[in-house]
Amino acid sequence: MMGNKGSYTVITGASSGLGYEAAKAFAGRGSNLILAARRKDRMEDLRREILEEHPALDVAVKVVDLSVPENVVHFYEDVKGYPLGTWVNSAGFGNYGSVGSEKPGKLGRMLRLNVEALAILSSLFVRDFKNVCGAQLINVSSCGGYTVVPDAVAYCGTKFFVSAFTEGLDLELKKEGAKMRAKVFAPAATRTEFGKAANDVREYDYDRMFGKYHTAAQAAALLLELYDSEKTVGLVDREDFSFILCEPRFPYAGESRCNQKK
Amino acid sequence: MMGNKGSYTVITGASSGLGYEAAKAFAGRGSNLILAARRKDRMEDLRREILEEHPALDVAVKVVDLSVPENVVHFYEDVKGYPLGTWVNSAGFGNYGSVGSEKPGKLGRMLRLNVEALAILSSLFVRDFKNVCGAQLINVSSCGGYTVVPDAVAYCGTKFFVSAFTEGLDLELKKEGAKMRAKVFAPAATRTEFGKAANDVREYDYDRMFGKYHTAAQAAALLLELYDSEKTVGLVDREDFSFILCEPRFPYAGESRCNQKK
Repeated sequence: MMGNKGSYTVITGASSGLGYEAAKAFAGRGSNLILAARRKDRMEDLRREILEEHPALDVAVKVVDLSVPENVVHFYEDVKGYPLGTWVNSAGFGNYGSVGSEKPGKLGRMLRLNVEALAILSSLFVRDFKNVCGAQLINVSSCGGYTVVPDAVAYCGTKFFVSAFTEGLDLELKKEGAKMRAKVFAPAATRTEFGKAANDVREYDYDRMFGKYHTAAQAAALLLELYDSEKTVGLVDREDFSFILCEPRFPYAGESRCNQKK
Repeated sequence: MMGNKGSYTVITGASSGLGYEAAKAFAGRGSNLILAARRKDRMEDLRREILEEHPALDVAVKVVDLSVPENVVHFYEDVKGYPLGTWVNSAGFGNYGSVGSEKPGKLGRMLRLNVEALAILSSLFVRDFKNVCGAQLINVSSCGGYTVVPDAVAYCGTKFFVSAFTEGLDLELKKEGAKMRAKVFAPAATRTEFGKAANDVREYDYDRMFGKYHTAAQAAALLLELYDSEKTVGLVDREDFSFILCEPRFPYAGESRCNQKK
């Protein structure tokens, strides 16, 4: 399985959308890959597509539903033995509708995937790989992780978690002098399966619904720009779709906890 | 059980700290109560203490661990038949330490309690009671839900969720013309069991650790100030411990989703 000696990039949510395209982008950089998602067929297709172009790479496929808490630590245990270099938490989904119309089952799955799985995988990856030269954790947030968007309030809450958690983590890593960086990727509307999942529909027409959007391949290229940058945050502007690379956007308390003595 | 015809205030996390004092404060306003937490003894003590002073009130005790997802909807089903007027999500805990030192078990419980239980209970309460005159949902966040605090990054992430979710919900309710309000209470350091739980220690000396803090009774009095106010957010300033009542602090996208067509 680990025929190649180069380091590996883990990508969750790799069966479609941004995760799928990010996998191809990292393969283009010569990285071995660990693809994780629920849908094996899609990942096998992706694996074949990548190996046709980059036959020297190793591409591992891990079938896992990360919205089930027990699966998350098991998945990490399964992959932590690889020489990991980059971890991209791209698995996640949204829901359109008012807060009072959220279905508890779907809301719970969204919170466990977007928040719990991302936080636990981030924590374990940092624990074990924070002193690996060049290591990076990229957590996929959203423009809705910095601006609350109507009709997607709970989803935006999950992305505010991702933004604040990852910004704080990057500041913590810098303060510790760790070699790993943690970065927030915050795309705006991107044509993926997001629209179908968030609306519980079989078809979703981005051309009809959005004045402007990025394709998944465009978003993956921006994710790589963030990867190459020294900045913590890569944010797509909601209005003009320009890409802003910047320092953490939320306030940070510096040295002291809430009024805590040093 | 429902001997009194007045409306009920639900308080999660009522066995100690802010929840315990908030229960006494709402009893002082003549509200019947539903107390929810894991520790029955503490809630029975609180019930006796309240009934001594306010014998006409009805105080129901519900023993439940809201960090277990299956319990959350069952708990809601159990209490939704009461004439509810106010719901205070005070249950929550923190953890001090670096992100890489978080224990997955404790981190998962924190995320399921601070984020998942709060979101699901908020959603169900809004669904059923949003058109009850004077109804209020008060979600307990933290000053760490607006400013990331070192050594508590994951905890702050959960409180950013609470702040963004609840601010967005209040804006949504106003736009719908609903009668319910949703409010964010964001205390700074408060002398409760928080310090012990966040540090996994049996004793925690707030006088030694903090230059300044509020008692739980002081914080509960501020929560009632927020309850009486028309503002969405009640925030204790981290530095001078002044109390700021204000409109939502995070940006809100107004009418359109990310560049979505109207």
